[in-house]
Amino acid sequence: MKLLTLRTSVGDKTATTAVRQDGDTLTEIPGFADVGALLQDPAWETTAKAANGATHALDGAALAAVVPSPGKIICVGHNYRNHIKEMGREVPEYPTLFAKYAESLIGPNDDLALPQESDTVDWEAELAVVIGKQGRRISEADAADHIAGYAVLNDISMRDYQFRTIQWLQGKTWEKSTPFGPALVTKDEFIPGPLMTSAVDGDVQQSTPTSDLVFTPEFLVSYISTIITLNPGDVIATGTPGGVGHAQDPKRYLQEGQVLVTTIEGLGQLKNRVVKEA
Amino acid sequence: MKLLTLRTSVGDKTATTAVRQDGDTLTEIPGFADVGALLQDPAWETTAKAANGATHALDGAALAAVVPSPGKIICVGHNYRNHIKEMGREVPEYPTLFAKYAESLIGPNDDLALPQESDTVDWEAELAVVIGKQGRRISEADAADHIAGYAVLNDISMRDYQFRTIQWLQGKTWEKSTPFGPALVTKDEFIPGPLMTSAVDGDVQQSTPTSDLVFTPEFLVSYISTIITLNPGDVIATGTPGGVGHAQDPKRYLQEGQVLVTTIEGLGQLKNRVVKEA
Repeated sequence: MKLLTLRTSVGDKTATTAVRQDGDTLTEIPGFADVGALLQDPAWETTAKAANGATHALDGAALAAVVPSPGKIICVGHNYRNHIKEMGREVPEYPTLFAKYAESLIGPNDDLALPQESDTVDWEAELAVVIGKQGRRISEADAADHIAGYAVLNDISMRDYQFRTIQWLQGKTWEKSTPFGPALVTKDEFIPGPLMTSAVDGDVQQSTPTSDLVFTPEFLVSYISTIITLNPGDVIATGTPGGVGHAQDPKRYLQEGQVLVTTIEGLGQLKNRVVKEA
Repeated sequence: MKLLTLRTSVGDKTATTAVRQDGDTLTEIPGFADVGALLQDPAWETTAKAANGATHALDGAALAAVVPSPGKIICVGHNYRNHIKEMGREVPEYPTLFAKYAESLIGPNDDLALPQESDTVDWEAELAVVIGKQGRRISEADAADHIAGYAVLNDISMRDYQFRTIQWLQGKTWEKSTPFGPALVTKDEFIPGPLMTSAVDGDVQQSTPTSDLVFTPEFLVSYISTIITLNPGDVIATGTPGGVGHAQDPKRYLQEGQVLVTTIEGLGQLKNRVVKEA
């Protein structure tokens, strides 16, 4: 099952609703403003399957970030061997964790905000895990039961700010910079493994199978939940493979007007035009 | 004005309500489940002043974290010269920012959860800034207008996890570890400057005036809001001074049964018993 968050207009106000995708049709799941709200319902999977609200065409639909306001976005660094190598690091014993705030998220086709303050804005294609069931100290064996499904996320990174200090947060959480979607594909329909790519104006920058993760989604759910409760709608961005612009020679960064396309086979595509902020 | 979040019981369910403190009396602010919800009201200050709901005695009141679920908790590292020195670092050009998640917060008198997984649990007394008005790219001159007030926070840090990787998050966000409160003291009644202390079983560990901050609250509001919108209820934990246990010789960490008291003159006190998790 594919679940998305659709922007709707009610008079002159904008709102959102959770929808289910069947082929080219989106069906509203009444009573749930977005996929994050839907996941708060313990029976979300049954509710979503049974929903038969108003329908919309997928083509041209205005999509929001699939979970627009996760309680937590937990990002993982150094999690693909080829990216670890290009950044000049050793394969780690523990996952490197950092945060991103919800205000950084944008929809799968939204403009990506290029701030005036940074000219080193880089791409990081990532497989995102969305939590479907609350848990603390979840064993790796039980972790799959807590995963609702998967989506695509691009962990856009302002490299100058990222490396101003030894903590990356300030380069990782710029307003309206992180595309996330297009859909939550439930875990019965997707197993990590297929190819993930990012491309700038059609030039492929990253191309690595998601099976190359050092720390798997199940390991990460277990590890993070040792520290803190994972709640429905929480997001784990599992890290990026080689091919980021900062590690190229010469270094490459996103420029105004470029289009960044991030794809994971079986999950879908993010397509975001880079627009300089006024 | 002092604003707090009070735990109440309705039948066998627990709930919370925002309250105003006048001397030894707490007065409910009807319609607001906590101080974070209150701050979403643009007229929160007028609303809080005028409220005349049910009253409770301060003595023995069950207090929750003053803002129990901030949208963002942004923490600052390396922000007191004496702590920078004890950690062996240089006075920085930019603030070091990292995150903490809301699930780590506890009330001002709650038990502090000592996890089985770490025996290097350390204290970090901090002045917390609470945002009262939304803004992006706020100038330093305008920053005070966006600050609702101040509170006390102890940025408890599991040093082993903090230093497992180069990103600190996993040592900074353990469940039910971060006392925050007791009250939001509005900015008309508190100017950073007074003494901040932490003490373990009565032995003072940290004792530094909050005027010794390298980056002031106003600077931090401006700097962070360049990156991302600050919203009402967001919290900036402004960093800790010298005297953390990890920098002592021999190193000292919190032990089961100890009582950690964190005080800022004019803001109040957090008093938390350290309890090992089952």
